[in-house]
Amino acid sequence: MKYKEIYENFKKEINALSYALWLISWDTETEMPVGAFKYKSKQRAVLNKNLLNLYFDENRIKAIEELNKLSLEQPFKKEIELEHKALCKILKVPKEELLLEQILLEESNQVYKKAKKENDFTIFEPTLEKIINNKKKYIEYQQTDELKGYDVLLNDYHEGMTTKDYDEYFALLKKEIVPFIQKISNKKLSYPTILNNGVFPVDKQKEFNHYLLNTLGYDLNHGLLKESVHPFTSSVTQKDVRITTAYSLNDLQSAIFSTIHEMGHGIYEQQTANNYSGSIIEQIESYAMHESQSRLYENMIGRSYEFWKNHYKKLQEIFKEQLKNVTLEDFYKYINKVEKGFIRVNADELTYSIHIMIRYEIEKAIFNNKLEVREIKNLWNKLYEENLGLIVENDTDGVLQDIHWSGGSFGYFPSYSLGSAIASQLYNAMGRVIDINKALLDDNINIINNWLKENIHQFGSYKKPNEIIKDATGEDFNPKYYIDYLIKKHSQIYNIK
Amino acid sequence: MKYKEIYENFKKEINALSYALWLISWDTETEMPVGAFKYKSKQRAVLNKNLLNLYFDENRIKAIEELNKLSLEQPFKKEIELEHKALCKILKVPKEELLLEQILLEESNQVYKKAKKENDFTIFEPTLEKIINNKKKYIEYQQTDELKGYDVLLNDYHEGMTTKDYDEYFALLKKEIVPFIQKISNKKLSYPTILNNGVFPVDKQKEFNHYLLNTLGYDLNHGLLKESVHPFTSSVTQKDVRITTAYSLNDLQSAIFSTIHEMGHGIYEQQTANNYSGSIIEQIESYAMHESQSRLYENMIGRSYEFWKNHYKKLQEIFKEQLKNVTLEDFYKYINKVEKGFIRVNADELTYSIHIMIRYEIEKAIFNNKLEVREIKNLWNKLYEENLGLIVENDTDGVLQDIHWSGGSFGYFPSYSLGSAIASQLYNAMGRVIDINKALLDDNINIINNWLKENIHQFGSYKKPNEIIKDATGEDFNPKYYIDYLIKKHSQIYNIK
Repeated sequence: MKYKEIYENFKKEINALSYALWLISWDTETEMPVGAFKYKSKQRAVLNKNLLNLYFDENRIKAIEELNKLSLEQPFKKEIELEHKALCKILKVPKEELLLEQILLEESNQVYKKAKKENDFTIFEPTLEKIINNKKKYIEYQQTDELKGYDVLLNDYHEGMTTKDYDEYFALLKKEIVPFIQKISNKKLSYPTILNNGVFPVDKQKEFNHYLLNTLGYDLNHGLLKESVHPFTSSVTQKDVRITTAYSLNDLQSAIFSTIHEMGHGIYEQQTANNYSGSIIEQIESYAMHESQSRLYENMIGRSYEFWKNHYKKLQEIFKEQLKNVTLEDFYKYINKVEKGFIRVNADELTYSIHIMIRYEIEKAIFNNKLEVREIKNLWNKLYEENLGLIVENDTDGVLQDIHWSGGSFGYFPSYSLGSAIASQLYNAMGRVIDINKALLDDNINIINNWLKENIHQFGSYKKPNEIIKDATGEDFNPKYYIDYLIKKHSQIYNIK
Repeated sequence: MKYKEIYENFKKEINALSYALWLISWDTETEMPVGAFKYKSKQRAVLNKNLLNLYFDENRIKAIEELNKLSLEQPFKKEIELEHKALCKILKVPKEELLLEQILLEESNQVYKKAKKENDFTIFEPTLEKIINNKKKYIEYQQTDELKGYDVLLNDYHEGMTTKDYDEYFALLKKEIVPFIQKISNKKLSYPTILNNGVFPVDKQKEFNHYLLNTLGYDLNHGLLKESVHPFTSSVTQKDVRITTAYSLNDLQSAIFSTIHEMGHGIYEQQTANNYSGSIIEQIESYAMHESQSRLYENMIGRSYEFWKNHYKKLQEIFKEQLKNVTLEDFYKYINKVEKGFIRVNADELTYSIHIMIRYEIEKAIFNNKLEVREIKNLWNKLYEENLGLIVENDTDGVLQDIHWSGGSFGYFPSYSLGSAIASQLYNAMGRVIDINKALLDDNINIINNWLKENIHQFGSYKKPNEIIKDATGEDFNPKYYIDYLIKKHSQIYNIK
């Protein structure tokens, strides 16, 4: 089978270069000395160029096209389908435009940083306009009879969810959660002051965060925990899935929940089926599915009373002095504190999706040609006031807070919120089969990890996200579980009837 | 200039792949999760194959050959000369034999480990015999009218030193140092017991070792300190020279002197001239020169009274409890303690070269066809008794202690001792220009680093090692400085007249 051989030979070379480039990025983000930046960039550019040449080699394209016509056995059939799909998508964009886009985004990164630093959205506007115009062109290249406008972008982050679906989803959130947040805002819980302004030495935080790795079953034989400015998960193979966290001296919970969040991403990748190793199938296509796992571990498990019932004593043991007068109940309330704020990444579980809803409204308006770039800021501020009652007073903490748009990532934000909602639905389905609270109280994380592996993780991109959800839960995506979960949990904590 | 362009294009690709392979090795040695080994090895093999194909591409070889005939400007002329030399050397060995050698050495590594574990040299003998026979063939390929037999191997690690030179050198050591060690053995100094059996928490050791980086002017903008099982220095560019150390809970000095040793290697590479960046010139050819710098920092600076006069208070501050009754004088004597032992890597400064002399005698006998493999162990044991008065009782701590021979590295050991001797000669020359003790007391390391940069480091491989020594010291290599230094320093510490 000649084409298969050609395809496999390219794959070998592509995997090797991808591995090298992955490691270079990992190194850059975690430990590379600053003065090495230029030398590294030069080498990376060469490897990147070679990788693209391999990827777009006409012999490889021909091989994939021919293989895609044959009746192949699984999982190779799926592998070729996914490669073919990825190729078709990218080949629709003229090569020169891809290159120009790259240059624009590099430039944009600088401009965005400047605008954010100077707290002035107008500095960023002209560049943002160019990016948006490129995205509109991209939509034209990609759109089909089924998929038009903003839906094209949404589909890049989670196949199967359209504007219609998101409209319904966010309408429900707006109806149920926005007034509920208002109710909670009228209640004030008190927390031991040490939690807000204590000093938590980083080496002790490290000890606890490394302890966490075991409690959640993250596989240290195929991963590691390190530090970086912004926490992330990084891999090109299930055999080596690395995560980072970031410690803050005065904030005990930020590293803990970053670590658990990234571990969720990590466990997902580590648990994809072995026989997809090295193929495109092990790369999880849907951002929302990925986020559903990080949020499931972070929020459903990590912010549950049962989890801490087991592990709070370890935290107290490590921070003897600081936590001696903080009870488990105090701590549980503290890590589930609801507070309306300007910044998405600092938002609690309940208000988080409202930040996303706002971004969704703006993106939708942009790509429906109903919003000019110069109107974005006003709409942003209006929506924050409307939904969270907050008066945004500066661009840095407002419309400029996220890096996504400067990198051309439109359609990405909704997948964050969708991930949380999917997590709730999956958690509910798991709870019908497993006594989750008992598993957490018994420190039996394996039973949870195994259910997730069987029903979600193992598939990688072998199944489409909507299939996974349906097979795992018995129904299509349904946001009701998310709403129920949020209201039930927070009603209890805030004693709301 | 067509050939130059061809050469430069290959260089760009070779540098990028070398960078990737370097980073993969660094990662493997310092943090890669164990379960990623196989996947990594597969990717590395692909990149390695591509690198070799580039290196041996006939267009590249042709370009270098043609460029080497032209009259070029410096430093490009030197660059081509060095590339041409390296190429000529390797092209003398038939390609199939290179591949067979690689397979043999991989196998050998396993057999060696088994033999060491089972404390049985005979397990390793048949493999060692094959390696030696290959080396003898290698000698045949490489030898010239000027360079024959064992000299070929010696020359690979330090150009310009032959058996004749080493014979003289080691004869002098034997005459002066062996009886001197005997004298010292009859004296016993006492040390605070805490130094031998104290507990020194690793995080505090880390704090001190990181403090050391600054005291010696290692450039953290182009390097970093990490941990690994065996300490090493790693780089493919002066822009990024990384070092590692290894901490031992009950041994305060091992990490300290490993760190200083590797910093010496590191500073050497960091200080090569900027305009050699990315070319073969920045790679230091002579192992002995490299070792001269690590030993100069480790022993001459790092084990000097003046250095600790300045920095011991910091060590005491960090290990308040442990060092409260240990004076600077105690510590100084302790870090210069002489003790005859079986293991080279644990040897003190004075006995170290005797371990090397023994290995040199054995290697020389092997390649002069005066020693069969089955006789190596007996000669080893005989020489340890003769020179250090030690009865070797097991192979693991005797003839099997070093990994070098199992990796085909013959001719390497002598460069370690030569490095120490060169260090003394350079240190003496520097002392004629600079008041070194004053510089150390004033914490003015820059003046020392600058002298080394000007006289040694900047050149990389632009000058031959013997030229560097002569230009820096005004004479050819002269072991007298080493002997004088060793005897003077230890006579003082041990109060020998």
